[in-house]
Amino acid sequence: MDVSLMQVFVSEVIGTTLLLLLGAGVVANVILPKTKGFNGGWLLINFGWGLAVFAGVYGAYKSGAHLNFAVTMGLLANDAGEYAPGVAITFASTMVYLAGEMLGAFLGAVLAFLAYKKHFDEDADPATKLAVFSTGPAVRSYAWNFVTEVLGTFVLVYVILMFGKTPAQLGPLAVALLVVGIGASLGGPTGYAINPNRDLGPRIAHAVLPIKGKGSSDWSYAWVPVLGPIVGGVLAGLLASWSLTYLG
Amino acid sequence: MDVSLMQVFVSEVIGTTLLLLLGAGVVANVILPKTKGFNGGWLLINFGWGLAVFAGVYGAYKSGAHLNFAVTMGLLANDAGEYAPGVAITFASTMVYLAGEMLGAFLGAVLAFLAYKKHFDEDADPATKLAVFSTGPAVRSYAWNFVTEVLGTFVLVYVILMFGKTPAQLGPLAVALLVVGIGASLGGPTGYAINPNRDLGPRIAHAVLPIKGKGSSDWSYAWVPVLGPIVGGVLAGLLASWSLTYLG
Amino acid sequence: MDVSLMQVFVSEVIGTTLLLLLGAGVVANVILPKTKGFNGGWLLINFGWGLAVFAGVYGAYKSGAHLNFAVTMGLLANDAGEYAPGVAITFASTMVYLAGEMLGAFLGAVLAFLAYKKHFDEDADPATKLAVFSTGPAVRSYAWNFVTEVLGTFVLVYVILMFGKTPAQLGPLAVALLVVGIGASLGGPTGYAINPNRDLGPRIAHAVLPIKGKGSSDWSYAWVPVLGPIVGGVLAGLLASWSLTYLG
Amino acid sequence: MDVSLMQVFVSEVIGTTLLLLLGAGVVANVILPKTKGFNGGWLLINFGWGLAVFAGVYGAYKSGAHLNFAVTMGLLANDAGEYAPGVAITFASTMVYLAGEMLGAFLGAVLAFLAYKKHFDEDADPATKLAVFSTGPAVRSYAWNFVTEVLGTFVLVYVILMFGKTPAQLGPLAVALLVVGIGASLGGPTGYAINPNRDLGPRIAHAVLPIKGKGSSDWSYAWVPVLGPIVGGVLAGLLASWSLTYLG
Repeated sequence: MDVSLMQVFVSEVIGTTLLLLLGAGVVANVILPKTKGFNGGWLLINFGWGLAVFAGVYGAYKSGAHLNFAVTMGLLANDAGEYAPGVAITFASTMVYLAGEMLGAFLGAVLAFLAYKKHFDEDADPATKLAVFSTGPAVRSYAWNFVTEVLGTFVLVYVILMFGKTPAQLGPLAVALLVVGIGASLGGPTGYAINPNRDLGPRIAHAVLPIKGKGSSDWSYAWVPVLGPIVGGVLAGLLASWSLTYLG
Repeated sequence: MDVSLMQVFVSEVIGTTLLLLLGAGVVANVILPKTKGFNGGWLLINFGWGLAVFAGVYGAYKSGAHLNFAVTMGLLANDAGEYAPGVAITFASTMVYLAGEMLGAFLGAVLAFLAYKKHFDEDADPATKLAVFSTGPAVRSYAWNFVTEVLGTFVLVYVILMFGKTPAQLGPLAVALLVVGIGASLGGPTGYAINPNRDLGPRIAHAVLPIKGKGSSDWSYAWVPVLGPIVGGVLAGLLASWSLTYLG
Repeated sequence: MDVSLMQVFVSEVIGTTLLLLLGAGVVANVILPKTKGFNGGWLLINFGWGLAVFAGVYGAYKSGAHLNFAVTMGLLANDAGEYAPGVAITFASTMVYLAGEMLGAFLGAVLAFLAYKKHFDEDADPATKLAVFSTGPAVRSYAWNFVTEVLGTFVLVYVILMFGKTPAQLGPLAVALLVVGIGASLGGPTGYAINPNRDLGPRIAHAVLPIKGKGSSDWSYAWVPVLGPIVGGVLAGLLASWSLTYLG
Repeated sequence: MDVSLMQVFVSEVIGTTLLLLLGAGVVANVILPKTKGFNGGWLLINFGWGLAVFAGVYGAYKSGAHLNFAVTMGLLANDAGEYAPGVAITFASTMVYLAGEMLGAFLGAVLAFLAYKKHFDEDADPATKLAVFSTGPAVRSYAWNFVTEVLGTFVLVYVILMFGKTPAQLGPLAVALLVVGIGASLGGPTGYAINPNRDLGPRIAHAVLPIKGKGSSDWSYAWVPVLGPIVGGVLAGLLASWSLTYLG
């Protein structure tokens, strides 16, 4: 049965809102002052983001739970037939995914801000407050940061496209664990956006929200976690298309 | 086949006792003096609570394993038809869930106290000893603490209500991981009660148990982790009702 | 088809050897000098032991993977009918489980000693070297340590006996996660033997192995992690028998 | 339907590339300067490597996802019939697995180097930079390091060969968790190569890549993580052959 584009939109908004509420939330918990998870370590962040995907996938069940425009672009490049059961791949549906993903990412970041409001009110480095919303590089180098984001997103989208070939009954846990792993392994240099809207939506939220002691939204870096993931997703879609055909 | 209300009561008591024995236990392990898990980190607490839910769900299999009055209220608001297979939603059954959840939470906290008796006998801040039983805010602000509890419980109950739409064979692991994730991401400001009886039952236990060097049970805060989760659960039930209808 | 008692013996030896090789191994990794996991934290120990159970269960597939005489006694008390498909509950089969579990625990500890031989050769507190093999209390109190072991083993055996009532396709992962959770939550006071042979077999290995700088095997404490788990397992079997009958 | 040897080769290259990209990546994240996961702990490394296997298994679905010549040799010794559905065990197919595993391990290490390029450019001990690629012993002792690698790989291959006897729907998660467990428990002395190509392929990459401040590739140790895993895998295959026959 066909799924309407409005249903796709609502589904992606719900899922991506959950994703960012939990994803931005775990970063807030680890880096903002006086939280109970303060300084809780990188693995805590990795599990937080992985399980944010877990929750988001359940929330966006109707639209195939992209939650990530790099996934949408990977499916487009892969020529997978449909974006989800009953959702044809068209220009219009692509834009609806993008819009839902962006709005959800923005809303989720706003909710995470509300959940941690009293901790944003504490004194902290403006870069720390930005880091709850958006990624930033450990060592700034647009070219190499771009490479890292391409590689991380490539792994994400490529492996997602292989899921169907190996039976398991893990449901949303498979992609959640994949995200835990990518964060653990490839998150070190850039904080693993691996998702354009996960980075851009919250960066817009950072720009517009009345955050105490707020600094720059670092727009000069903003293109890296947008373009890198899109390139990685498209490359993954293309290679997956070849390998699924060749390997069968 | 119909389940009797006495069976519902026993089932919820067993499950919630397991929940609090393990849940209060992991907090004791991390914060009480001289334990082997002392200072073991926030992720340890998150896994401890998540797996406490895991055990509790197996224990309360007959009653649908609410373990949490916010879940009960979410199902009521969602108008899900039944509280569990064979358990009709009525005023009486609602009260039976509440009673079982409260008694189990109290008993589990008492057992956790016994398991860690020698560590409660050590010198420690009275607030630390209370924190094994009940949650408390990192930064006290009734309004914002309430918001955080509403958001965390909303995610819990909303995603639980979506579980049925995405096939997986994870059984109790799905909700366990969801609780790990909510703790990692939204537990920073208030310690994530996200469950009225999980907080109130043990607070009563704290008030009545002969704990060495015991201080206040902090009753002025007690309404936040009761009312916040109930509001979050009801909102989740209502929104889930809408989204399950709209998305199909 | 019937399983011979010799097959039961071999199966339990294999599984319990894997259990102790990995279980004693993770403790060695965290507490012996110069290892790569030195000071790696309580959650590392919890996952190490949980996944030791995971491996052991696969290894002991033929005998129902007790790996633990408290589980055997729990099944006996529960009057479960069989110890495993095709293995009747008799005095002889009970003794065969005990013998296999004890031998495997001894052998696994010897192998873990070999894996960490160069680290046992380093200078370390004799109590640290013992702690790789056997549990010891954080605060010594035979009565309360006993209570803690009873409670931890009760949770283990009781929840195992409930597994069949809630469908999932987790296989050995369910019990592995349960052990992670019990360790996180109830391991703080005594180091969670929750298994008589897991403690006694390696203690015998400690007594007989030529460990450099070895101290006492602490036989005065040895009865606690033997008797406590047996009592906990029997109580769990009895209560599970009642609750499975009552709840249906 | 038969799988061509070229398909086997491509499948193993893809899977092993993913394995090393994520596996070398997590080590880089934990030990190279200025990364976000710096000093993130042993459990982070264990989950990183376990989930690297998780991703790699999905990638190498067509060839049974050996990813590891010790697994290939274990299946050969076990006389399992086929290396994967449709792939006969022959000298030619064995060499094709070896070639694919080696090339993938090399390529994955190169990609991990690129992902962390800016961190390799930082000042660090040459031994630290080597450690991203290849394992090294905590205490150097060829004989005992060899024993540790034999034991770790034995557990890996033996348990994999038992997977089929205990039903579960975990798919690639089972082997991923097994690797987390082996790393936690037996990784302390040597850093758990437990895979000849995982160590040798990246060591070659280390030797040829233009790494700033690079030191020795430590070829004198290189035979241990090659020969130890092969011996462990063969022993596991032989014992598994016996135990599967005896236990049935």
